[in-house]
Amino acid sequence: MKISVLGAATTKFGELWSRSPRDLVMEAVNEALDDSKEISLQDIEAVYVGNMLSGTLGGQDHLGAFFAEELGLHVPAMKVEGACASGGLAIHAGVTAVSSGIYENVLVVGIEKMTDFKPEEVAEALMGAGSDPERDAGASFPSLYALMARVHMEKYGTTEEDMAAVAVKNHYHASLNSHAQFTFPVTMEKVMESPVVSSPLKLLDCSPISDGAAAVILSSKIKKTGRNIFIVGSAVATDSLGLAERDDLTTIYAAKEAARKAYKMSGVGPNEIDVAEVHDCFTIAEIIAMEDLGFFGKGEAARAVRLGQTRLGGRPVINTSGGLKACGHPVGATGVKQVVEIYRQLKGIAGKKQVKGAKLGLTHNVGGSGATAVVNILKG
Amino acid sequence: MKISVLGAATTKFGELWSRSPRDLVMEAVNEALDDSKEISLQDIEAVYVGNMLSGTLGGQDHLGAFFAEELGLHVPAMKVEGACASGGLAIHAGVTAVSSGIYENVLVVGIEKMTDFKPEEVAEALMGAGSDPERDAGASFPSLYALMARVHMEKYGTTEEDMAAVAVKNHYHASLNSHAQFTFPVTMEKVMESPVVSSPLKLLDCSPISDGAAAVILSSKIKKTGRNIFIVGSAVATDSLGLAERDDLTTIYAAKEAARKAYKMSGVGPNEIDVAEVHDCFTIAEIIAMEDLGFFGKGEAARAVRLGQTRLGGRPVINTSGGLKACGHPVGATGVKQVVEIYRQLKGIAGKKQVKGAKLGLTHNVGGSGATAVVNILKG
Repeated sequence: MKISVLGAATTKFGELWSRSPRDLVMEAVNEALDDSKEISLQDIEAVYVGNMLSGTLGGQDHLGAFFAEELGLHVPAMKVEGACASGGLAIHAGVTAVSSGIYENVLVVGIEKMTDFKPEEVAEALMGAGSDPERDAGASFPSLYALMARVHMEKYGTTEEDMAAVAVKNHYHASLNSHAQFTFPVTMEKVMESPVVSSPLKLLDCSPISDGAAAVILSSKIKKTGRNIFIVGSAVATDSLGLAERDDLTTIYAAKEAARKAYKMSGVGPNEIDVAEVHDCFTIAEIIAMEDLGFFGKGEAARAVRLGQTRLGGRPVINTSGGLKACGHPVGATGVKQVVEIYRQLKGIAGKKQVKGAKLGLTHNVGGSGATAVVNILKG
Repeated sequence: MKISVLGAATTKFGELWSRSPRDLVMEAVNEALDDSKEISLQDIEAVYVGNMLSGTLGGQDHLGAFFAEELGLHVPAMKVEGACASGGLAIHAGVTAVSSGIYENVLVVGIEKMTDFKPEEVAEALMGAGSDPERDAGASFPSLYALMARVHMEKYGTTEEDMAAVAVKNHYHASLNSHAQFTFPVTMEKVMESPVVSSPLKLLDCSPISDGAAAVILSSKIKKTGRNIFIVGSAVATDSLGLAERDDLTTIYAAKEAARKAYKMSGVGPNEIDVAEVHDCFTIAEIIAMEDLGFFGKGEAARAVRLGQTRLGGRPVINTSGGLKACGHPVGATGVKQVVEIYRQLKGIAGKKQVKGAKLGLTHNVGGSGATAVVNILKG
């Protein structure tokens, strides 16, 4: 597979109260078109929108036609949803659409507007991604990931400081990213002293509630000028919605399986990846991701973080954008933003957070506590 | 394009209070697998779920993984949404997935559970498919289609009796379909005397609120035994969410455009279609659909209905299932059910409602008041 990424952009992520979903999507799409230089809006043949909560929170469904109209297009358009993996799934849908030969150029948009609602409403809506028994028991996603963290600590000796080190690294990366929600660095002490949300996870172990949009233009054409960036692998896998049905809480089976398929499809191995955006909805999730993706052996990722191996200057560098943790997590936008960040890295236009000489990158987007996972592999 | 429909089934549509979405989907999928005879659950490589309101009404998102888990599968799964066209869009997503060569066999499921909620909640949720100004003005879909009906009456002389004739025909067809929500026939008098919902539309001009599921297995393989049924054209188009932005209320531009593309893709013309399932959410919508699809000239469809040309025995026969009007309209299931019905017609297994010698069929699925339209063309 060789799907060209012709252009890509994100808005700033954050609490964007003065901006509507329309504003955010238009900004991301216009910037992606500008970035492509070779393609105009009229070349777009289909639109895939990654979004989770527009219906549940805002009562607005029909987002495909909603944004197609805003763009002035009459082309096929649809919303793709898989909880927090909605953006990654929209990318995968775009990849299959271009691979089918039915469409030459497609636009993939990720969008979520969350901060206009009360936090407790958002937390309840997000549990729409979980299992019935978890919801009935009053579980929240922090509590589910806290369980995973406890088992990982027990089994592999992972510590709260190891998790805090993920937050410190990602805030550092975000401090180099003007589009990040949190551009301030944090210290290990600050993370460790932050209020407990669901033990052992503290406030600074958790990704925030965010607004934002991202856009990517996929094509079967290659660019005439400049460096071509390709998606060379794209795979999805699923698992039980609830944790109780899983054999092992220290791994996300769907992510391992999606990675296995994406590596096979692309012919790329984990050791070849220079830079990755992974789904660090909580700091423990980044540690588990590093192991599931094969970057480090089981139980060895925490040490790698501690040693700074995944920080700018190490390899593979993880979450140069700041990740969900510090760049922000507008749910449906996240999986698309990850592709934007890797595209920029491989193109060498990632600015202060540039990974020098990056040739191969990966995105890892997870829905719920791991019921859906999407892995995309990009080549520069 | 030549995508094989290996198997297809629907549940009964209706007020199914004792059955969960899980029950309905499992029944439809198991029957579709049984129908295929040659394929088992383990051959399914991806799942596309057409659904609109699970989040808005039920607080349950993440439906792809939700049903994949229920089926015992770990394969890629995603929800596809485009209001009342969600099912048709899921079929289109399945078609692109198989065409891409990434997947050989995919399962497309359509599901909606609506009658567990208060009718006013459902009506409000459905307005999530409309435009902001329409919603702010308190418009409902009956009122929007009533506007379209008024203009059609004014411009082409269409009468309330012409619309009633659509209901009479579709109830007659549904009386031959044991899976229909309403299996009782109605008379012209009964339709005309039914309470006004939004003038000129009366209760019996409107499709009901329904529960139901449908499943279709698409493949790049052809069947070794029995008659092969193919999707030979599949196209989508979009238009403004609101009526105010349209030039002409007597036509649905997106449907005309989707039809044009699907005819071109398949090399099939409207005069060759033997049987069609069209989106008769209101009786006027069937009259407009017949014109948009090119079955009859502009302003001539009402006469065709009056003369019984689209009833069993005529040509093209429209809505042998009973249509949304009488078979029922579980929103996300409708577009998938349409493909099931045409598949059964082309296979010659449609029972008492069989169109003799049907070789070419079409499905027409609309979202909102026409912001999304999907047309699929099938060949037996």
